[in-house]
Amino acid sequence: MTTPRPQGVPILRLGDVLVTGLLNELDDKSALLFTDELTERIVSDSARGVLIDISRLEIIDSFVARTLMELTTMSRLLGARVIVAGMRPAVAITLVELGIRLTGVETALNAEQALTALGWQRTLEAPGHDLVG
Amino acid sequence: MTTPRPQGVPILRLGDVLVTGLLNELDDKSALLFTDELTERIVSDSARGVLIDISRLEIIDSFVARTLMELTTMSRLLGARVIVAGMRPAVAITLVELGIRLTGVETALNAEQALTALGWQRTLEAPGHDLVG
Repeated sequence: MTTPRPQGVPILRLGDVLVTGLLNELDDKSALLFTDELTERIVSDSARGVLIDISRLEIIDSFVARTLMELTTMSRLLGARVIVAGMRPAVAITLVELGIRLTGVETALNAEQALTALGWQRTLEAPGHDLVG
Repeated sequence: MTTPRPQGVPILRLGDVLVTGLLNELDDKSALLFTDELTERIVSDSARGVLIDISRLEIIDSFVARTLMELTTMSRLLGARVIVAGMRPAVAITLVELGIRLTGVETALNAEQALTALGWQRTLEAPGHDLVG
């Protein structure tokens, strides 16, 4: 088993939170792969939360919207809470203008706020370089 | 400016910490692109910390090791602390056997511990679904 052909964004594990993202080239096949991988990882990593960063998406069509809604529902069935973060203002405008809905999908302004909602807290000060030596 | 051809892993911003990763197919060109993008993002996002997840890397040769060392030094010059997280045991063994050094590169067992070192804290309990409604 060598390189499993990285389609899209890898899934990073931060404790019981999985962090991933969507790229522009989401077609039927990669959406299916993404859904499969994410749900499997939720189970294998016992994830309680999922952060999906969409700041790279320049457009959300009805297909992507449906994918996000389905992912949210599936994850919830597996016991994980999904937050979609980083939607561009232009994307939000287009969504409303086209009448596309993201029913049931929880959103956050950016990845930082989503991670905070999922139970991570930024402490006041990051440890400095002196710790590195 | 449309799709900027996503080579490898996107860079996610979590407050003043950038989170990214390396994939297996790191050649000269993509290493250069990665270095460029990361250093630019450190400046534009005023990042204080960088988490590089390498759990997907199945091998680290001297080229990848040098890239990681250079990235660490460059980032430090820009005021950001780099932590490389998630090295596979087999990779660590190979590194030592081949005598490849990661001089100056700070490592962590996994992304979670790296993020903690960079100033994020996991709170006791993730907010449950009842908040979603």
